[in-house]
Amino acid sequence: MGAITLTTDFGLADPYVGLVKGAILCVHPAVTIVDVTHAIDPQDCAQAARSLAWIYPYFPEGTVHAVIVDPGVGSRRKIIAFRHQGHLFLGPDNGVFTLLLDPISPDPIVAVDNPRYFRHSVSRTFHGRDIFAPVAAHLARGLALDALGPVLDPDNLVRLALPAPRLRSPGAIEGTIVAVDHFGNLISDIHLELLPPLEAGTGGSGIEIRCAQTRICGVSQSYAAQPPGAPLAIIGSRDTLEISINQGHAAHDLEARAGDPVTVTWSAKSSGPG
Amino acid sequence: MGAITLTTDFGLADPYVGLVKGAILCVHPAVTIVDVTHAIDPQDCAQAARSLAWIYPYFPEGTVHAVIVDPGVGSRRKIIAFRHQGHLFLGPDNGVFTLLLDPISPDPIVAVDNPRYFRHSVSRTFHGRDIFAPVAAHLARGLALDALGPVLDPDNLVRLALPAPRLRSPGAIEGTIVAVDHFGNLISDIHLELLPPLEAGTGGSGIEIRCAQTRICGVSQSYAAQPPGAPLAIIGSRDTLEISINQGHAAHDLEARAGDPVTVTWSAKSSGPG
Amino acid sequence: MGAITLTTDFGLADPYVGLVKGAILCVHPAVTIVDVTHAIDPQDCAQAARSLAWIYPYFPEGTVHAVIVDPGVGSRRKIIAFRHQGHLFLGPDNGVFTLLLDPISPDPIVAVDNPRYFRHSVSRTFHGRDIFAPVAAHLARGLALDALGPVLDPDNLVRLALPAPRLRSPGAIEGTIVAVDHFGNLISDIHLELLPPLEAGTGGSGIEIRCAQTRICGVSQSYAAQPPGAPLAIIGSRDTLEISINQGHAAHDLEARAGDPVTVTWSAKSSGPG
Repeated sequence: MGAITLTTDFGLADPYVGLVKGAILCVHPAVTIVDVTHAIDPQDCAQAARSLAWIYPYFPEGTVHAVIVDPGVGSRRKIIAFRHQGHLFLGPDNGVFTLLLDPISPDPIVAVDNPRYFRHSVSRTFHGRDIFAPVAAHLARGLALDALGPVLDPDNLVRLALPAPRLRSPGAIEGTIVAVDHFGNLISDIHLELLPPLEAGTGGSGIEIRCAQTRICGVSQSYAAQPPGAPLAIIGSRDTLEISINQGHAAHDLEARAGDPVTVTWSAKSSGPG
Repeated sequence: MGAITLTTDFGLADPYVGLVKGAILCVHPAVTIVDVTHAIDPQDCAQAARSLAWIYPYFPEGTVHAVIVDPGVGSRRKIIAFRHQGHLFLGPDNGVFTLLLDPISPDPIVAVDNPRYFRHSVSRTFHGRDIFAPVAAHLARGLALDALGPVLDPDNLVRLALPAPRLRSPGAIEGTIVAVDHFGNLISDIHLELLPPLEAGTGGSGIEIRCAQTRICGVSQSYAAQPPGAPLAIIGSRDTLEISINQGHAAHDLEARAGDPVTVTWSAKSSGPG
Repeated sequence: MGAITLTTDFGLADPYVGLVKGAILCVHPAVTIVDVTHAIDPQDCAQAARSLAWIYPYFPEGTVHAVIVDPGVGSRRKIIAFRHQGHLFLGPDNGVFTLLLDPISPDPIVAVDNPRYFRHSVSRTFHGRDIFAPVAAHLARGLALDALGPVLDPDNLVRLALPAPRLRSPGAIEGTIVAVDHFGNLISDIHLELLPPLEAGTGGSGIEIRCAQTRICGVSQSYAAQPPGAPLAIIGSRDTLEISINQGHAAHDLEARAGDPVTVTWSAKSSGPG
């Protein structure tokens, strides 16, 4: 038993994901493997970092999360593994774990350099198959982290400078659209906790959201609370503010995209962040 | 053991499908999860209804089929679950089960409203992860339907008005192209049973099929029975009439698409529907 | 336990792959199913042959590899199954096994024609669901090959004429780009063993590679060994020569594609193929 998740930039057309799974099954035939996404933009470590930090708590404790977005494959970049919040993480030391490392953790982070747990032959271009897959499988079988290699100084690990929302003044936050999903929803990095309380019923009516050329008043309780075609703001499944169009595609219709700024303002009458 | 199928409009680029699987595994780590499709057009309940009615009999009895095409997520639309032909079904009450509900069933249909089987915290936009996933997992583990909520009056459930083939006169049927597949095959809703007998060898030679600007005489026994590039009619894997081109892409080459009418006529000499 | 891999041209939008999995689970509910790829170009048996020959050794021995690229479905083309290098193979007799059959094998190859192991009802267009799936499941459960049908004469099986690299003169090879992957890497069929030794450190510096309008000197040890944007040659994960661009997309940037010739030359000073 046990589970391994895969977050990669491999796409689904090539056999790369299948090969990773084959190499996992060679070590641990009974493990459950879950595809989180293989559509990280090629070599976009920041995107992988955001995705990973969002998804891991929804898996069973003890799950091994392998992140294979690895532009430095075959170079001297390190591979690291660690435990965090009851989950295990494995990936290149290139910033994909930035959002997990930020809070200083008492848990040791190890370098993965013991070839005993690699495939017999390691290619120069596909450590996903030759290193990450068998190591993830060994971890899912219960291998201790310290068997993989020496403990590293966490201060020396690569961290990405990811933009974070800024409180510009009391009652005014500026954030960023960090993702556009399949439905065209514009997903911001402005967490619920940065906003004033949004009691059910009031609809956050004192709040105004601006993004691209659009101004939205209030936060909706559901897509269907607005007429089809109308832009709306809603707290999405990441607990962050999203901009959507009921039965529409907000990114297309509002001509917005990842990287665009979002500002939220609310009147002094509202209480502060709840 | 046990299996859960997923039919959604989530696409595969975002981590949404992975999150549903993680939430399932939190409840039932040993279950097998099968992706039926995540390419239902966004919010297209009719397409989901047709897909589901086609695919479920090909899975083991006892399989839980979760349909997550849910434009009304977070609104007051109900979530329903029921047993049908030895399979279990779970999804929003928005018509995705139209083709299963049409024949009146003695089996009770329950409202899924007992939060004991939901995730601890339920978002406004992603009931797939927070309600459907854990409930499907509980059902796959053997939870009784009546633990989920009260029995509903089946007459009050949402049904979609799906077009059905019409017998225009003896020897003349008009149907619709309901899907175009990856190979360009034009899949109609005209079931084998509506046509005169197609004995092997005769090739249904008295039959004429018209669709878009194309006229086809007879029903082929295989794609390879026609020369490459020639349009042909064949009984496809849904037991309905399909229009194809051997080694070609019928939708492109014939300029046809979902929604187009198809007419089938046959001479009085043929016997009636077999 | 046991595993089945799927290599098809079905794409992921339609429910076809899901139906194959359902039909497998009806026979063998505990099997692990791995998607190798469903993006073989429609009916491209040569592409399937190359993919299969590459991927199978990375799976556990005893894995059943089902190849469902089957333009002749429903015609008189045979279905075959055989054991090779400890793995089991199942697919149409249309050349998808060309690269496995080429070395003459003492292992018997059987025709799959015993309907006892098929679904009760077999469609004309979807043997993936109705024949390959249940037969693969029976094989994964341990069914003996000779239960499926009679042994065939291997000389009568379909083989494709796949281009192979040619040694044009001592120190000069001409090969072909056989695939372009998701990252834009140009994957050739020139195996490492055809090249002079590439010791770490020397970087194969005496070697010159030409493809499209590009000339590359030397073979790199990693993508990161070249500056971003620079074309490079590297031994890829198939142990063949690939042409890549560090953090770029070689196929786009070099205007190259599958089918293009690649030539490799090296000076007489280098030793011969190592």
